[in-house]
Amino acid sequence: LVIVTLLTDFGTRDVYAGVMRGVITGIAPEAQVVDLTHGVAPQAVDEAAFLLASAAPYFAAGTVHLAVVDPGVGTKRRVLCVETAKAVYVAPDNGLLPRALAADPPRRVVSVEERSFFLPAVSRTFHGRDVFSPVAAHVAAGVDLDRLGPQVPLDSLEGWGDGRLEGWGAPPVVEGLAEGRVVHIDHFGNLVTDVAVDPGARVVWAEVDQDRIEGPALDSYAACGVGELMLIVGSHDTVEVSINQGHAARSLGTQRGAKVKVSFEARRNPGGGAL
Amino acid sequence: LVIVTLLTDFGTRDVYAGVMRGVITGIAPEAQVVDLTHGVAPQAVDEAAFLLASAAPYFAAGTVHLAVVDPGVGTKRRVLCVETAKAVYVAPDNGLLPRALAADPPRRVVSVEERSFFLPAVSRTFHGRDVFSPVAAHVAAGVDLDRLGPQVPLDSLEGWGDGRLEGWGAPPVVEGLAEGRVVHIDHFGNLVTDVAVDPGARVVWAEVDQDRIEGPALDSYAACGVGELMLIVGSHDTVEVSINQGHAARSLGTQRGAKVKVSFEARRNPGGGAL
Amino acid sequence: LVIVTLLTDFGTRDVYAGVMRGVITGIAPEAQVVDLTHGVAPQAVDEAAFLLASAAPYFAAGTVHLAVVDPGVGTKRRVLCVETAKAVYVAPDNGLLPRALAADPPRRVVSVEERSFFLPAVSRTFHGRDVFSPVAAHVAAGVDLDRLGPQVPLDSLEGWGDGRLEGWGAPPVVEGLAEGRVVHIDHFGNLVTDVAVDPGARVVWAEVDQDRIEGPALDSYAACGVGELMLIVGSHDTVEVSINQGHAARSLGTQRGAKVKVSFEARRNPGGGAL
Repeated sequence: LVIVTLLTDFGTRDVYAGVMRGVITGIAPEAQVVDLTHGVAPQAVDEAAFLLASAAPYFAAGTVHLAVVDPGVGTKRRVLCVETAKAVYVAPDNGLLPRALAADPPRRVVSVEERSFFLPAVSRTFHGRDVFSPVAAHVAAGVDLDRLGPQVPLDSLEGWGDGRLEGWGAPPVVEGLAEGRVVHIDHFGNLVTDVAVDPGARVVWAEVDQDRIEGPALDSYAACGVGELMLIVGSHDTVEVSINQGHAARSLGTQRGAKVKVSFEARRNPGGGAL
Repeated sequence: LVIVTLLTDFGTRDVYAGVMRGVITGIAPEAQVVDLTHGVAPQAVDEAAFLLASAAPYFAAGTVHLAVVDPGVGTKRRVLCVETAKAVYVAPDNGLLPRALAADPPRRVVSVEERSFFLPAVSRTFHGRDVFSPVAAHVAAGVDLDRLGPQVPLDSLEGWGDGRLEGWGAPPVVEGLAEGRVVHIDHFGNLVTDVAVDPGARVVWAEVDQDRIEGPALDSYAACGVGELMLIVGSHDTVEVSINQGHAARSLGTQRGAKVKVSFEARRNPGGGAL
Repeated sequence: LVIVTLLTDFGTRDVYAGVMRGVITGIAPEAQVVDLTHGVAPQAVDEAAFLLASAAPYFAAGTVHLAVVDPGVGTKRRVLCVETAKAVYVAPDNGLLPRALAADPPRRVVSVEERSFFLPAVSRTFHGRDVFSPVAAHVAAGVDLDRLGPQVPLDSLEGWGDGRLEGWGAPPVVEGLAEGRVVHIDHFGNLVTDVAVDPGARVVWAEVDQDRIEGPALDSYAACGVGELMLIVGSHDTVEVSINQGHAARSLGTQRGAKVKVSFEARRNPGGGAL
């Protein structure tokens, strides 16, 4: 059993995602296709990168992650296929993969160029169907990556920079100030930031645009009153701004991409409850 | 083949539902995961309870129904695993299950406490991923319920009350007046009520907030003119207020939870058409 | 392995699609159910017909396509089951199938009347669950079409007309003017028309309602500036009006169904880039 996950900005009102499943199942009938989401904001490569990195660790070894947020479709951007110890990633070379690869280091990075693994006719606008899905399906069916195209250096990847990731918010700090962004607004209106929290740290406050939310980070949404603004370390292991049973993004008027500052201090009571 | 259904308020723009599938498939690779919906209104336990009870009868014996609408995530609310003649239900103890269990009586009710069936790290905010999915997957893979935790009395379930369900609208009546609520507004804008219709009864009229819609209940949406307000006994076997090819909720300005009165009289012509 | 695809206007906030999967899997446990989309505009049979015809070619031989956009549910409209060289189609007889069948000619057209292949209780409003899903599942499980009901002539199909399709936009033209419609607005706001492009033709301009967009059709979205209006031959092989990284439907205020004119001239440089 091989799982193929799909992460796109295609939405669900079109047949785009369904057609990708058709192509994949035609080539790899035994693959099990799982939607991560098709609800990435249109062309939001950074949001897709964050969500992929967040979801990938929860899948079995050998999973093929196919991620298509591809504003450069039809241009000369490369098609990547990357093998790690745990998974294979297939995506355009536009910054979508580095965040996941930072946590799941690559063994082989291939620029997919062998057209016999594409559909016979490649459209201008839908490489998800014509290029990425057949490539992912062939990999799921056992094709070796070396048949897909030449290996390329990891640091040639868009967004990888000089050996470290750029623009992904500050690393966790124990004491002091971290800066980052609202990288995703979830279905509940929670502001998901890219500011990670070190186990030794305590959140004092967070600022989103002009709004300051006082810490500490609570243990559960229900630990404050209904409708109250709060901080919590969410399921992505980063700081989130939430309203218990409310919609923080709507209440604060926050957009994806908003700047975030988080103040930390060393935890005085490491065995205690709130961060 | 074991089916695991998912019913949540997680929406589809996040990777939450996809990650649950990843966790389930990692533990129970042979399980077939089916989305009932992830579109329950945020924190709407009563709507989830209605939809689960409506959908469950259409699944094969042995299906595991995993339902997570969980505003109390991170608090001490119990995690339930309930075995019936037909299915196993996994859900938080917050009123989500009683409506389904009233139609599908439990054999065993277990409070899940054995942490070895959870993921190794349990987050504060996403027990759907860290607790409910692995538990449902272990059950789908054959783990006996008694290994999950102690059995608890059925009437200790939140929302079960003293042996009968509370707050679920009036029982069907043949003649007279039933009171209930708009428990769900569907994709077409139909007002789905929790007022069931006895086969011997004829709907005379229904009132939603201040609006009165005259009966009888029609045999099909197309039995009245396009844009006309009408009553029908819908696929949940309850009274619905609809507009042929229109959107009743938007036209009437009705919100989920609105109060409903339905007037019935005994059917005079049981073999006839309209109710 | 048999695939059953689902194409409906049921949306994803209800359990309707999930319950269809439950019914199908109960009857045909080995079938693999794939969502094409549940996001067809409510009652938009013409949009469903376009999307089905666009998606079907990408599925393996033997796939069962179940399409339910059914404003006439509960009336006497027929239930069709159509076998072609490549697939089986199950849908109401309301114009949903002819466009797909024009590209994938039928061998057998059956009016499904044998109630033993329906669920025991058939509701007034949800034949997707009670009629179409069990029929599609029985076909996927190997039931011969002749057991479902009598064969009927192809030209008796709603929307088939006298041997050719009506109302599906103009055939492709090499030189001159084609008229069609915006048959679908996709998730990105692209205006998908039903005007096909002949390989020998070059798009000079297109008009949607009062707006004229100058050609030629570009090779990729990124071939013009961000926010610019453009023409492209999209993944449905028809002319699309798009805005690079924008939302054409919102910017132009265009509704599905808008009239479209496209001016073509013979291609002067067949080996060249832009159409």
